[in-house]
Amino acid sequence: MTADDPTATRGPVHIVGTGLLGTSIGLALTARGVPVTLADTSPSMLALARDLGAGTIESAPAPELVVVAVPPDVTSDEVAAALQRFPDAVVTDVASVKSVLLAELRIEARTDPTLDLSRYVGSHPMAGREKSGAAAASADMFTGRPWVIAAHSGSAERAVLAVRALAADAGAAVVSMDAGEHDEAVALISHVPQLMASLMAAQLVEAPDRALALAGQGVRDVTRIAASDPRLWSAILTGNAPAVSALLRTIRAELDTLLDAVERAASDGPLAPGAVSGISRLISAGNDGVARVPGKHGGARRRYTEVIVLVPDEPGELGRLFSEVGEIGVNIEDFQMEHSPKQKVGMAIVSVTPEAAQPLEQALEQRGWRVVAP
Amino acid sequence: MTADDPTATRGPVHIVGTGLLGTSIGLALTARGVPVTLADTSPSMLALARDLGAGTIESAPAPELVVVAVPPDVTSDEVAAALQRFPDAVVTDVASVKSVLLAELRIEARTDPTLDLSRYVGSHPMAGREKSGAAAASADMFTGRPWVIAAHSGSAERAVLAVRALAADAGAAVVSMDAGEHDEAVALISHVPQLMASLMAAQLVEAPDRALALAGQGVRDVTRIAASDPRLWSAILTGNAPAVSALLRTIRAELDTLLDAVERAASDGPLAPGAVSGISRLISAGNDGVARVPGKHGGARRRYTEVIVLVPDEPGELGRLFSEVGEIGVNIEDFQMEHSPKQKVGMAIVSVTPEAAQPLEQALEQRGWRVVAP
Repeated sequence: MTADDPTATRGPVHIVGTGLLGTSIGLALTARGVPVTLADTSPSMLALARDLGAGTIESAPAPELVVVAVPPDVTSDEVAAALQRFPDAVVTDVASVKSVLLAELRIEARTDPTLDLSRYVGSHPMAGREKSGAAAASADMFTGRPWVIAAHSGSAERAVLAVRALAADAGAAVVSMDAGEHDEAVALISHVPQLMASLMAAQLVEAPDRALALAGQGVRDVTRIAASDPRLWSAILTGNAPAVSALLRTIRAELDTLLDAVERAASDGPLAPGAVSGISRLISAGNDGVARVPGKHGGARRRYTEVIVLVPDEPGELGRLFSEVGEIGVNIEDFQMEHSPKQKVGMAIVSVTPEAAQPLEQALEQRGWRVVAP
Repeated sequence: MTADDPTATRGPVHIVGTGLLGTSIGLALTARGVPVTLADTSPSMLALARDLGAGTIESAPAPELVVVAVPPDVTSDEVAAALQRFPDAVVTDVASVKSVLLAELRIEARTDPTLDLSRYVGSHPMAGREKSGAAAASADMFTGRPWVIAAHSGSAERAVLAVRALAADAGAAVVSMDAGEHDEAVALISHVPQLMASLMAAQLVEAPDRALALAGQGVRDVTRIAASDPRLWSAILTGNAPAVSALLRTIRAELDTLLDAVERAASDGPLAPGAVSGISRLISAGNDGVARVPGKHGGARRRYTEVIVLVPDEPGELGRLFSEVGEIGVNIEDFQMEHSPKQKVGMAIVSVTPEAAQPLEQALEQRGWRVVAP
């Protein structure tokens, strides 16, 4: 990175909001030598981010770029304030919703002509964790993740380049979308899955312990993200309400069709007309949908073959397995551990390229491992 | 195991149906020295199970126990046939639904008094895979998994003991429930999660590639089990329709409440009255529900602390990590790999007991690993 490289952030970069994302961006830029200043309404959060090495808290008189990393419901106010306070700076935000922010800013610009939206480009790094706050931040949070750059029709080219450079400097894969395309995409692959996980998990609140004791990996996976923060998610979901409600209405219609089929079976028995076909149609559509979800490296998940190995539940055994897979010369594309309560043997589900699967199984068996799939 | 041990299966055991479960039970019993005979309507499936070592295909004139392992919609017919054909044998089945089978058998027994239901005890091993068929079978499939024994009011004690012995011999953890309790439990922790995953995945069928390219681990987890077999699941869901429809009606009511909140935000903006509170209530209920899902060893998942380590995407690197965790002397309680398209560094999420987390992080950092959580 040199001062002449137009594709790199020169700085100083001013970050407003030192939560998980703001602090992580500060850490990533600082690690690349970009000067970063930090601001937060909470002095203790601010001090924590500084102590973690995310930047300094001296005020920057003329930042090149301002990154607004506050909750979605206060983002447009902070973007407008930054545009006014720093008349030469490019301003971006990292909120999970984009259309509502742009609409709010455009309304404000109509009543206040000094608000220069050509310097604003919204963005959204597709990274995060169930934990929040600076303490969970990491310079590597964006490495290889998509980072959506959502320029609007009035964005200046220099502003778009500056935000693309920010995403690239943080190690992310830049994706260009307008605000509407972004919001529909995240409704589908993030916001509605969150709600489906929460709807399912909410049914478990009053469940008998004996029922929960039968839980396997399926319900664990379906409900995992239900552990997310209610305050943050309320702001995200109200901010993306048009796209989310359109999808929820479709799901409600499909749920009604499903419920009709299940209730036929409940009242007239398993072979009631329309019962099996109604349920089977939904499960088949689910088969088709899940096959389209990309796995690692952008491929569909079916590109990989699973090799299932039994692993004793003792320190070092998983390590021995992975070492030996490495010695055999096979790369692990994905990995999952499956087990149940009281189990003393786990199933290590190792995904590898199809051509590597059979040689790996044979080599592992020769080394004494118990491979489950024949 | 001796002939005098009343808690062990003596055999011969006759298995009707050599799919995934029937073949796995045959493999498990054969491994313990119990003589097993096999039957299937498909000669090629039967030959495959025999060749895999699940048992012989000679007919047993007087089996001690008959295990009916056929699809749920034909299970009661096969149970009745086995009770008639083998007048001294205990008969069990392994279907995922129990009440409907018992009801069908009781109706049949009312018209045919020779049908001796005292020798029938339903059961359900809580194990399985997304793949089906004998080729995916394994002697270890039931190791440590719950196996529900659903005796009915007329079951003979000898029959209950024989089926408990079968589950124990297969390595499972025996759980006693009546058919109604079982069906409500599996509706909650298996059947309805399956439908929620399918409903979500069905929305992805027509999704733009560019939207799917933003998918992260969240939507992957929520939709993973949507890859299940439509024929099998239609039979399971129609067979457990009363319990499933009751839960689905509750979910539809909660979805309506949620949709009302989201639509308020869609029409009147993110701060519309009732929008944030309606969404926040659901997300909070989901927090409470997911916290009750047991993790490994039967404990709630929060018993463990996550240590997140960056691992280069190269052969042997995961192995090195696990070896070193073993050398440090820490047992891995759970493990997950997180990554996104194009990423060349993965995040290994290692769950350990809370007291082991900080020493492990320090020891890994001393060895040069990059630990993400501070």
